[in-house]
Amino acid sequence: MTSSGSNPALIALDWGTTSLRAYLLGSDGLALDTRTSAAGIMNLPAGGFDQAFEDTCGMWLDAHARLPVIAAGMVGSAQGWVEAPYVETPADADALVAGIVTVKTARGVTLHVVPGVLQQGALPNVMRGEETQIFGALSSDASLTAADGALIGLPGTHAKWAFVADARIERFYTFMTGETFGALRDHTILGRTMHPSATHDEPAFLRGVDTARDAGHPGLLATIFSTRTLGLTGQLSAEQQPDYLSGLLIGHELRGLNEVLARQQSSLSGRTLRLIGNDALCNRYRAALARFGCHDAPTVAHATEHGLHRIAARAGLIAAPARAA
Amino acid sequence: MTSSGSNPALIALDWGTTSLRAYLLGSDGLALDTRTSAAGIMNLPAGGFDQAFEDTCGMWLDAHARLPVIAAGMVGSAQGWVEAPYVETPADADALVAGIVTVKTARGVTLHVVPGVLQQGALPNVMRGEETQIFGALSSDASLTAADGALIGLPGTHAKWAFVADARIERFYTFMTGETFGALRDHTILGRTMHPSATHDEPAFLRGVDTARDAGHPGLLATIFSTRTLGLTGQLSAEQQPDYLSGLLIGHELRGLNEVLARQQSSLSGRTLRLIGNDALCNRYRAALARFGCHDAPTVAHATEHGLHRIAARAGLIAAPARAA
Repeated sequence: MTSSGSNPALIALDWGTTSLRAYLLGSDGLALDTRTSAAGIMNLPAGGFDQAFEDTCGMWLDAHARLPVIAAGMVGSAQGWVEAPYVETPADADALVAGIVTVKTARGVTLHVVPGVLQQGALPNVMRGEETQIFGALSSDASLTAADGALIGLPGTHAKWAFVADARIERFYTFMTGETFGALRDHTILGRTMHPSATHDEPAFLRGVDTARDAGHPGLLATIFSTRTLGLTGQLSAEQQPDYLSGLLIGHELRGLNEVLARQQSSLSGRTLRLIGNDALCNRYRAALARFGCHDAPTVAHATEHGLHRIAARAGLIAAPARAA
Repeated sequence: MTSSGSNPALIALDWGTTSLRAYLLGSDGLALDTRTSAAGIMNLPAGGFDQAFEDTCGMWLDAHARLPVIAAGMVGSAQGWVEAPYVETPADADALVAGIVTVKTARGVTLHVVPGVLQQGALPNVMRGEETQIFGALSSDASLTAADGALIGLPGTHAKWAFVADARIERFYTFMTGETFGALRDHTILGRTMHPSATHDEPAFLRGVDTARDAGHPGLLATIFSTRTLGLTGQLSAEQQPDYLSGLLIGHELRGLNEVLARQQSSLSGRTLRLIGNDALCNRYRAALARFGCHDAPTVAHATEHGLHRIAARAGLIAAPARAA
């Protein structure tokens, strides 16, 4: 994704907890250059936010001093550079624009920080960064603006599943799937019998998915122990155990999502949805979704850049992009 | 629990992963002396098993050279002093006796190691040490030998729930509740907003239990995130968050157990059961069980000593105890 016929128009930052990804975008929203740094908000250099920003974007601003700058992600959290208070669901792109908070950098540039989204309730939910990706997907995938709404999954450390209708994030769920996997593998007895494997063991992964999907077990706290006992009884090798555990957790996540859908007289089976995330993880989720009868779950590419570009245009930081035909 | 009218008859060891608890038992099965050491099988002194054994029991054997010695727990695992292969369910006390494996110590004493129990199946289960506690409870609590069977819970790092009938362990489940709690608290984002509290916050704990118990959420991977978001929205203080998370996980465990019972046309509601474990943890479980309608769940005391004494008697290591009237 490079653009040759467009001048630099926007610096767009996806600034999370453990990494900072910066895009130099053309007026058409396509990336002219990309820089990635490990300077997430919990991993800043000695000079703090300003230093991380200069290290990553200084070169672009030296060449193009007047470029507007927009950022989404944990950089807008209470632990971030400046806090951009959450916008509440249902949230559309205009609500995000209205919630933008700015901070002046040492160089004198104004950084525009997109707020996250909060869903109040007995079990509140929050996202920071995913809201921007969701609006990026909406801008590039016409199927997501269907009248009956759409479901978007964002696998990761904290996986999100968002219901979108009328170009608004109506509600969403968070599953701590990735982080729980890491904690169980690295800090419980389950890791002791595991060996890392360079290759993905699809049968072991799907066995985990199926185990979680099927009724007849007493929940996640019980099924995860089978990672160990299937090893003890010679049914799962040390190399298979990580993929089995991954399948179990993703399977429990999708089972939970299916229960949410069932209350709406819906189901994953036969459903169309979209994924946003890295290819390897989205492939894993597609394989798991197929075990739940969902065979139409393509990945939306470049959702982050598209989202930042769209919000910047809506905020008047850049000229509005031409509408897709 | 001390015995004054009885001579030393048995050295009984509860030898687990992180600790070694040793009892000098009289012929009546009551403890004359108790010693506790941190020398679990993963935490042995430089001299290994023999050194840990001498440090803990040498003094008793110096005084009473011919005492028989019996041990249960992870000391009989593949990583233990000698492997005592699992006995399969359904398992009675005679099966455990038949599975005893011996090892000679440096002092020339024979250590008798009680085997664990294995339940084969799609989700195999194993226990080591709990089987001995269960038979100890059976020997001291007549209600557990009722014709329609009994349910025994053993809260802990890996909580066990065992169905017992005809003085046999028929089947059981393992929930990694305690270890998952530690991994989530110490190694995920959930711990970052928590402050430890010296006191148990019962309302926060029960709020967690109720949240897990009630339908309307998409499972454990989603509910645990509310530990953080209830904090972010000012509904749960940093000091309350650990007890809330503990309640959530115990609530998910009991919800899963309830689903197992439902398949047998039973329920926790109105049921009688027994707990084995430390007082603080059993109190937590009793409070949680009450939210599921179970108000009769007393703790069985001294189950470990009773179990080791009973199995030693059955194995002919000591004279059989007088039957309770």
